Amino acid sequence: MKLSFIKPVYAHCDLPCGVYDPVQARVEAQSVHEIMKKYAGLEHEEDRWRAVMIKEDRCELVKHHLWVLWTDYFKPEHLEKFPDLHDKVWKTTKQAGACKKTVDPAEGQKLLDMIDDIAAVFAETKKA
Amino acid sequence: MKLSFIKPVYAHCDLPCGVYDPVQARVEAQSVHEIMKKYAGLEHEEDRWRAVMIKEDRCELVKHHLWVLWTDYFKPEHLEKFPDLHDKVWKTTKQAGACKKTVDPAEGQKLLDMIDDIAAVFAETKKA
Amino acid sequence: MKLSFIKPVYAHCDLPCGVYDPVQARVEAQSVHEIMKKYAGLEHEEDRWRAVMIKEDRCELVKHHLWVLWTDYFKPEHLEKFPDLHDKVWKTTKQAGACKKTVDPAEGQKLLDMIDDIAAVFAETKKA
Amino acid sequence: MKLSFIKPVYAHCDLPCGVYDPVQARVEAQSVHEIMKKYAGLEHEEDRWRAVMIKEDRCELVKHHLWVLWTDYFKPEHLEKFPDLHDKVWKTTKQAGACKKTVDPAEGQKLLDMIDDIAAVFAETKKA
Amino acid sequence: MKLSFIKPVYAHCDLPCGVYDPVQARVEAQSVHEIMKKYAGLEHEEDRWRAVMIKEDRCELVKHHLWVLWTDYFKPEHLEKFPDLHDKVWKTTKQAGACKKTVDPAEGQKLLDMIDDIAAVFAETKKA
Amino acid sequence: MKLSFIKPVYAHCDLPCGVYDPVQARVEAQSVHEIMKKYAGLEHEEDRWRAVMIKEDRCELVKHHLWVLWTDYFKPEHLEKFPDLHDKVWKTTKQAGACKKTVDPAEGQKLLDMIDDIAAVFAETKKA
Repeated sequence: MKLSFIKPVYAHCDLPCGVYDPVQARVEAQSVHEIMKKYAGLEHEEDRWRAVMIKEDRCELVKHHLWVLWTDYFKPEHLEKFPDLHDKVWKTTKQAGACKKTVDPAEGQKLLDMIDDIAAVFAETKKA
Repeated sequence: MKLSFIKPVYAHCDLPCGVYDPVQARVEAQSVHEIMKKYAGLEHEEDRWRAVMIKEDRCELVKHHLWVLWTDYFKPEHLEKFPDLHDKVWKTTKQAGACKKTVDPAEGQKLLDMIDDIAAVFAETKKA
Repeated sequence: MKLSFIKPVYAHCDLPCGVYDPVQARVEAQSVHEIMKKYAGLEHEEDRWRAVMIKEDRCELVKHHLWVLWTDYFKPEHLEKFPDLHDKVWKTTKQAGACKKTVDPAEGQKLLDMIDDIAAVFAETKKA
Repeated sequence: MKLSFIKPVYAHCDLPCGVYDPVQARVEAQSVHEIMKKYAGLEHEEDRWRAVMIKEDRCELVKHHLWVLWTDYFKPEHLEKFPDLHDKVWKTTKQAGACKKTVDPAEGQKLLDMIDDIAAVFAETKKA
Repeated sequence: MKLSFIKPVYAHCDLPCGVYDPVQARVEAQSVHEIMKKYAGLEHEEDRWRAVMIKEDRCELVKHHLWVLWTDYFKPEHLEKFPDLHDKVWKTTKQAGACKKTVDPAEGQKLLDMIDDIAAVFAETKKA
Repeated sequence: MKLSFIKPVYAHCDLPCGVYDPVQARVEAQSVHEIMKKYAGLEHEEDRWRAVMIKEDRCELVKHHLWVLWTDYFKPEHLEKFPDLHDKVWKTTKQAGACKKTVDPAEGQKLLDMIDDIAAVFAETKKA
């Protein structure tokens, strides 16, 4: 019986698949943004309750996809090249949390822009 | 108190966001395919157990994303235009189930091709 | 190492257990229906929020159980014998989605009737 | 604003739907039993891994459904009439846990029998 | 192939880790209590919806952690020494359900006290 | 209707409860460590499969609890005082991922030590 079956030194991912894509976080953030844009036009309170409830879940999924990208995809050499990467991801996940508490579409747009910024870093690392 | 707050006749989605993207199923299917391609090269049995376990979850996610697309996005007018849509989605979700039971990369590739086929229908409906 | 360990051609289920029962979807749909019947009598808004929230989850479970039945249990020979099966399941899952958006008990009853209709097909296939 | 919107004294359920059915636990336990019966005949190790993995999840679902029944459905007057109810549920959930650790079909059958015993108590309380 | 790979007689836990801690239930119950204390001061209805929604999830987690402790940690010899343990756990999980239906901080405090009471029994069993 | 119902500027948590505790990550990490210590002594392969499977889930929970702490609890002023906090959390979540791939108890101990290091920072911020 071997003790360490894959060398656990900054493994680039938890499973050996290597498939990551910031689009997963972006699709959920688009839902958040669309819900916000439609919120003001919802007449019935039951519709607004559902909008807030569904937005809550979508924001959580944005966070989850960004956390996975941060921990599982990004490696020490990426950090060296993009020293503000930690802070970018941190603030974007905080923005996803902030979007749970507001229905202002400007905040949803800000979340999308911040994800696009991380996606740009991701694209750079894929080129290398 | 109103009884029916959004008219429940073939509502095009469960929430009012309208954001759907077959890419969600595709990303998971890519993971499935990559795991299959690496499986034969995994030396330790613990690695193979984990591969089978993670593949199981990814296949389930493929199914889930396709089911949501089928029930929540596609509308009666799409069915009229693409009468084999039900069958396409059904067979693709069955293929996702089949990929749980094999590590043959050809089956993973087949799953990707079937998803691409649904994505092509999706793209057609978006143009309209 | 074998590549394909269970032949992945329209496998009748994902696991080798073969246990399926439309009652799983029905129990959840009964909850949806009961919540709708009690909704009008709920005095406090916190109770109505919870009712809408819990109904949302139960509707999602109805969909999930029907999707599993559709993909994992039903086989090509069932489709041949019941050519409208795809459409039945599709419309029933859409009705489960519609029930998220209404508190009209008539819509919940319609969902129960549609599930009973699928259960009747299921019972037929079990006889064969 | 009212503080307590439903009186929280041994509320008979968490939501006002009142729908409970031991069949939910039983369907999952049947899966467990079927997997056990087929286990000895599974030739490939990947199939056995999946069987153990799926059985694990099904056992957990049995526990969950029994816990919900115990906490949410059963009331103090049921306990008075069936003083060994706590012990019955406790031992049955323990048996569901035990079934994670074995592939002996006799243990799966024992789980089914214990659930049937709880279902009999449930049926008695429904008559009253 | 062996049929019973760990003897399934009141196994003290489902996995061989043996790690249990009532603090898991307590942390969630503290959240429930804090939400209740802040509820009266929430000005906007969207904040109150979210508070009720998040409280619902936290109460469910309290139940889950207590159920796991009850089924997986406690053994027959503990029951002999603490014959009211079943009833204590039952009433505490019922109180967690009751906290879903109220925003009265006194009910949240009662939940915390009941968890502390179980934690005291737990501590006793650890000493032995 | 107000657009922004809680000001979304680095909100200190997603819900207004304010309850965080690194003990949640630690309890799961202890499970991981205990499983690793017992792994070598597990005779039957079914037991080893279950150990790897359960360890996988526990590692994921460690990551989740640390991510929540990082995004929801820690604030810009904490970062100023502990400039290596991002890196600490990042490496600890990577170590939790690494523990999925090994059964070496030393790696589990390292995970516990890294969590204790974050808990020490957490304790410092609570004092302030």
